[in-house]
Amino acid sequence: MNIAVTPPKASEAQAASDSLPLKDAREAVMKETGTIPTGERAGSRKVYVAGEIHPDIRVPFREVAVHPSANEPPVTIYDSSGPYTDPTVTIDIKRGLPLVKSSWQLDRGDIAPVLNPREVKPEDNGHASGKNLAPRFDTSHHRVFKGVEGRPVTQYEYARAGIITPEMEYVAIRENLRREQTAPCIRDGEDFGAAIPDFVTPEFVRQEIARGRAIIPHNINHPEVEPMIIGRNFLVKINANIGNSAVLSSVDDEVDKLVWATRWGADNVMDLSTGRNIHNIRDWIIRNSSVPIGTVPIYQALEKVSGVAEDLTWEVYRDTLIEQAEQGVDYFTIHAGVRLPFVPMTANRVTGIVSRGGSIMAKWCLSHHRESFLYEHFEDICDIMRAYDVSFSLGDGLRPGSIADANDEAQFAELRTLGELTKIAWAKGCQVMIEGPGHVPMHKIKANMDEQLKHCHEAPFYTLGPLTTDIAPGYDHITSAIGAAMIGWFGTAMLCYVTPKEHLGLPDRQDVKDGVITYKIAAHAADLAKGHPAARMHDDALSRARFEFRWEDQFNLGLDPETARKYHDATLPKEAHKTAHFCSMCGPKFCSMKISQDIRRDAQAQNDAGGSLAEAEAGMAEMSAKFRAGGGVVEVKVP
Amino acid sequence: MNIAVTPPKASEAQAASDSLPLKDAREAVMKETGTIPTGERAGSRKVYVAGEIHPDIRVPFREVAVHPSANEPPVTIYDSSGPYTDPTVTIDIKRGLPLVKSSWQLDRGDIAPVLNPREVKPEDNGHASGKNLAPRFDTSHHRVFKGVEGRPVTQYEYARAGIITPEMEYVAIRENLRREQTAPCIRDGEDFGAAIPDFVTPEFVRQEIARGRAIIPHNINHPEVEPMIIGRNFLVKINANIGNSAVLSSVDDEVDKLVWATRWGADNVMDLSTGRNIHNIRDWIIRNSSVPIGTVPIYQALEKVSGVAEDLTWEVYRDTLIEQAEQGVDYFTIHAGVRLPFVPMTANRVTGIVSRGGSIMAKWCLSHHRESFLYEHFEDICDIMRAYDVSFSLGDGLRPGSIADANDEAQFAELRTLGELTKIAWAKGCQVMIEGPGHVPMHKIKANMDEQLKHCHEAPFYTLGPLTTDIAPGYDHITSAIGAAMIGWFGTAMLCYVTPKEHLGLPDRQDVKDGVITYKIAAHAADLAKGHPAARMHDDALSRARFEFRWEDQFNLGLDPETARKYHDATLPKEAHKTAHFCSMCGPKFCSMKISQDIRRDAQAQNDAGGSLAEAEAGMAEMSAKFRAGGGVVEVKVP
Repeated sequence: MNIAVTPPKASEAQAASDSLPLKDAREAVMKETGTIPTGERAGSRKVYVAGEIHPDIRVPFREVAVHPSANEPPVTIYDSSGPYTDPTVTIDIKRGLPLVKSSWQLDRGDIAPVLNPREVKPEDNGHASGKNLAPRFDTSHHRVFKGVEGRPVTQYEYARAGIITPEMEYVAIRENLRREQTAPCIRDGEDFGAAIPDFVTPEFVRQEIARGRAIIPHNINHPEVEPMIIGRNFLVKINANIGNSAVLSSVDDEVDKLVWATRWGADNVMDLSTGRNIHNIRDWIIRNSSVPIGTVPIYQALEKVSGVAEDLTWEVYRDTLIEQAEQGVDYFTIHAGVRLPFVPMTANRVTGIVSRGGSIMAKWCLSHHRESFLYEHFEDICDIMRAYDVSFSLGDGLRPGSIADANDEAQFAELRTLGELTKIAWAKGCQVMIEGPGHVPMHKIKANMDEQLKHCHEAPFYTLGPLTTDIAPGYDHITSAIGAAMIGWFGTAMLCYVTPKEHLGLPDRQDVKDGVITYKIAAHAADLAKGHPAARMHDDALSRARFEFRWEDQFNLGLDPETARKYHDATLPKEAHKTAHFCSMCGPKFCSMKISQDIRRDAQAQNDAGGSLAEAEAGMAEMSAKFRAGGGVVEVKVP
Repeated sequence: MNIAVTPPKASEAQAASDSLPLKDAREAVMKETGTIPTGERAGSRKVYVAGEIHPDIRVPFREVAVHPSANEPPVTIYDSSGPYTDPTVTIDIKRGLPLVKSSWQLDRGDIAPVLNPREVKPEDNGHASGKNLAPRFDTSHHRVFKGVEGRPVTQYEYARAGIITPEMEYVAIRENLRREQTAPCIRDGEDFGAAIPDFVTPEFVRQEIARGRAIIPHNINHPEVEPMIIGRNFLVKINANIGNSAVLSSVDDEVDKLVWATRWGADNVMDLSTGRNIHNIRDWIIRNSSVPIGTVPIYQALEKVSGVAEDLTWEVYRDTLIEQAEQGVDYFTIHAGVRLPFVPMTANRVTGIVSRGGSIMAKWCLSHHRESFLYEHFEDICDIMRAYDVSFSLGDGLRPGSIADANDEAQFAELRTLGELTKIAWAKGCQVMIEGPGHVPMHKIKANMDEQLKHCHEAPFYTLGPLTTDIAPGYDHITSAIGAAMIGWFGTAMLCYVTPKEHLGLPDRQDVKDGVITYKIAAHAADLAKGHPAARMHDDALSRARFEFRWEDQFNLGLDPETARKYHDATLPKEAHKTAHFCSMCGPKFCSMKISQDIRRDAQAQNDAGGSLAEAEAGMAEMSAKFRAGGGVVEVKVP
């Protein structure tokens, strides 16, 4: 495959990039469109790679150039930030994002416009009116599509039919991070039986999707999405939750959090809004999102029956699925595994049922003493979701909410049910992933992955954390990052972030950023440990920069250049210190990195022939003399 | 053992406690003595437990009472905060802390005053003078002791001699967290071959110390210390680093950071000061520290030779050891494993040698082309340290500084040498722990523990993180908490914290707190996973509080009540919300915890006979009817 780099409009991006990273990185601050953060990330420029099978696809990357003294190529980083970080794109959240998806499915006749799309009803927004009604997004340009009877429409169906879609080629390019297929490939890790290839080909993507081991969540009615893949044999992804509640938040806040989350690296966003205005807020989010959007439709269905779980019906739920599928939601969390006989299994738990969807369904089952309508209508749900290629995220409504409840009977009974449902959904042509816990102490994490692989036939696992202790409210991004990194290593494909506000309140902008960065760490630590061949080059580039005192490169290659720079400048603010061969931890007098650079330089000279210890020893006397002659530590003078 | 609770002066502590936690917790703010934070922690009171073998010892705990509605006993929490959180103690940092240590060793004739203690020399403070010289601590009341020839002095020697010291009984009581020996003991974990007992007895402590598997770092010249134990079969401990540098910080800052770190849970503090005034600052730290203090003596020795590593001599180093041992430093990091033949092994590393001590010694070895004087004089070092019971922390000078360098030849060659040195130190009667990395991807962490156990004969392991990725400068408390939790689970006895400023600058107060809380999380997650029987009661108490909407209890039982409360109040500030049966995530309309309380209550009633699924099923129709009659969700009205 010819991995051609095609910068968007070369002049502008290049101009921004040439001066980076040494001088202007600090000035590469966000331009604001209203409150929405836009502009390139510090020290980065946006580049695109074209497809080969499908030449019109343009896969985005973030490229970080390093100082010329390093004599290294720029580092290519996975980029989930969408057009917001492309300086050539004008952002207008009132119009929504430009469309990414080609007309390919339409041209083939696989999808067709819906002649009578569902009208918005007052209950979709909780009967909000007047000044309480959130403004409507102008959807006059949004044509609603649906699969044509008898034609394939989901990525799963195409994959099973042996067809490589543009989406599949897109994610294949995306996963390789511009590595060349011919380049040497470091494999160092323990993947617990995964099948991570040296290089991702479109055909490999197709095979993984056909086997149900990966999904590309991508509703045909969300053409603004830049396709991404979720599967054990790909880079670990992260999801950020946003959403208003009955208590707080507005349209602006939610779009801002969406863009902010993807700017820092969220691969997916779930809109967990409750309360009024759910429909209208969701339009704003979807039309402005370049990442797949997930929802939990039962939340809105419950609002439509005024919050009384017992009043839920299949008809209300079904109508909600169609409403959201036509809007363009990419995946639905469906708690169809919360079956009537499992509910009593939670009675002796320390924290009962902690999933909102799970508790709603448990209450419905109990109050009617009937099997869940989600379970009974599961095939109907599949038919609806298939028609728009909405992916399943089979919800873990009985996940443990405390260390005490981890890996119990209720949790695993539900998991086995999710495995049964997976087979039904596949038979119906749908894409499926499986949600996982929750609160789990470290020694019980691996069993979660093992049971999931065993019972859910390797469908991608998507976990919330898990939190490894209950004792740190205010820090659950950290208690859960430990569990998330581990379960990602073991094979979980996507990690749902947890913010510092978990258990305490709705996340604000800073919480969203903290959650995303923390989960980027967990996901990357998992990629490294799995031995993903695209993972370590980022660490190595940063560590070389660190060793060579390329401070600007160290900042820019980090997950959060602004914060790293701020922390450095708190003790050594002068510009000259950005090129100093020391830092504030040890000061200029002695620095281990400096000393070991001396050692390295001299030992290298002696030891070039790949030398044995004996050879190295032999060279030592000479090195010793040289050191003494050179006067020892080289002090670096700074102004 | 009779675990009697003896509150310090009952009236005052009780008065503070009675009103807690519902009303006055917020007012239990820190009283300030200068900048030093004192006063009880929010919602907590200080209690003490007396010894049985040694009735004069008083072991501190922090007790968190829960709301009377819970009908639960208070939760006892390990307390490293020292007299600073005892409202009956008057703090004056100019005088130092009251003495904890008994005169027991003196009475037995095992130790004796040093008649001519070493005088402070100008080079001890880097020849600082005039206004550049930090004020001296008034040490006129500090008598310097030393072991008497032919008598035991170290905890290791006492343990080998079959003697249970007051220190041993103290830590035994401390580790049990006021659990009764007769109480039922939940064992749920994977301890990888550790030997954690159901209940810690003084005799068990003695045996572990005698086997070299645990240490009580406690210089006889630091009688202010509240004894604590470091070992694989005890609770995992954490260390916080403080210290000024050539660039920044003052006496006040360092004492403040010391107290601040222990207030949040640091079990040990290392003073890593460099630059001038090292001696004077250390006096202030030790005399005001109730936790063991560690140092890296080579830092000060290097200052004494003006920062020129080649000019270091055994004599300068030896003099520094005695200086610090007489001051009362509890453990020394000694990089005696950085041997001449290992230095070339680092030449091809991405980040060379990153330990300051390691690079100093590597440079010394290279420039003289001689074996390390620390290695050659190791027995002499043992003799000095034994005489004061200064514990060894055998430094990992060749630890990896990047993912690329993890688990390499240099690192493991040094580790094997540390194993040899451990045996020598034990033969000399010294207590020993072993330092570990560093930067290690998750899949290579367990090998570090396995190799350490194998080559270092189960001496306690004390690791820095490890960091599981290099790509997040500004967030290395998190990259490393992942590795720290895992290696703690595998058997590491103490975790050295990493702050957000790692690689970037010196930590400030907030960084110290962030580092400590993050590492308390890692250590506790490790205790849970190891199945330490004293660990889970804290999680369970907090989770019960969460499930029962006891918001104040949830805050107070958390590691950081102030932050949890602040986050909660950001969205629901009213006092009434502290008793509301919902939070801002879901709002009052539906709350999974509320629903599942309903389920639990009803299922419990049906299912009381330990009922089978069939029985539960049978009761469901009735529950269903009840639910419908009751009108479904109970809405909670709040003002």
